[in-house]
Amino acid sequence: MNKAFEIETPTKNAWCDITRRVADVVTQCGQADGVVTVFIPHTTAGVTIQENADAPLQGDISRALERLFPWHGDYRHCEDNAAAHMKVVLMGPSVQVPFVAGEMLLGQWQAIYLCEFDGPRRRRVVVHVSP
Amino acid sequence: MNKAFEIETPTKNAWCDITRRVADVVTQCGQADGVVTVFIPHTTAGVTIQENADAPLQGDISRALERLFPWHGDYRHCEDNAAAHMKVVLMGPSVQVPFVAGEMLLGQWQAIYLCEFDGPRRRRVVVHVSP
Amino acid sequence: MNKAFEIETPTKNAWCDITRRVADVVTQCGQADGVVTVFIPHTTAGVTIQENADAPLQGDISRALERLFPWHGDYRHCEDNAAAHMKVVLMGPSVQVPFVAGEMLLGQWQAIYLCEFDGPRRRRVVVHVSP
Repeated sequence: MNKAFEIETPTKNAWCDITRRVADVVTQCGQADGVVTVFIPHTTAGVTIQENADAPLQGDISRALERLFPWHGDYRHCEDNAAAHMKVVLMGPSVQVPFVAGEMLLGQWQAIYLCEFDGPRRRRVVVHVSP
Repeated sequence: MNKAFEIETPTKNAWCDITRRVADVVTQCGQADGVVTVFIPHTTAGVTIQENADAPLQGDISRALERLFPWHGDYRHCEDNAAAHMKVVLMGPSVQVPFVAGEMLLGQWQAIYLCEFDGPRRRRVVVHVSP
Repeated sequence: MNKAFEIETPTKNAWCDITRRVADVVTQCGQADGVVTVFIPHTTAGVTIQENADAPLQGDISRALERLFPWHGDYRHCEDNAAAHMKVVLMGPSVQVPFVAGEMLLGQWQAIYLCEFDGPRRRRVVVHVSP
């Protein structure tokens, strides 16, 4: 089963917790066991699974990525957002989470985040449930 | 359904658009909805999904990765291509794309690329279609 | 089919080859063809597929990641392991490998590794087999 939803990212760089939205799709599909794929159809936002317990960590990670890929670098891309593309290349556009009895097998500290690197924007999230 | 194809990468570092080849496998499988996994059975080439509209961006990304993992670093690997392995560790060996009515749900600007980091070589691409 | 196993990682940073354990799950499921998802329900250990033939390469990669994300950085995370989280963000928490006739289509040099970045710890590995 395949569903999509949209979110408005609030700032240039943002961590948007989409765990609840993904879990809702898993529930709606009515399938007991399987694996859910979360896919981001954009090239300057990615998706990751990380800790949901300490918000300052997200800023640490964002700053570390900015240090690796500075926004104002010597780039030839026709837009000014080359650094955002680079972050997505490393983070990736999808994650997969197995689920059992309708519950994703996320660890105690894990949440699913859409990571915005060139916001604010309206972003689409595709969720696919496989057996 | 599972299919594989091969491509010749042209240069040391190369971005090879394999979107059409992957889409062909999705069409051949005759399945309406599902998710396609693209898997690279190599350790010095990876796969990513990125913008297909501005070729200079690909050079920007390749140069940024070269800056993070210089080819001539202080490595102990028995070959000279440690940096290529490092890039694959971060990029990853697979991507997944959901499809509906036989069409991959790629965004407007997205294409699937095999990224060569130690070419030119003949590379194999495995494509698996799941429900 | 869904199975999980646990491993004890031996050191702060470690590469733990889990290929055999994953292959065993594929064999047990009795399914001929499909794709296996390996998912790590932790935020300071990841999973990757890399060369199994030259152990010094693993040290090269670990040192390169340490250079990008130094353990003693200027971080605001409430624990001292922010760098470990950063490495997982780039490496990712899951890999997918297609299999045919019960055999994963790994390349000649590929093995599946749980990468520990904040050990030693007991880690859980979730393996899901899809059609």
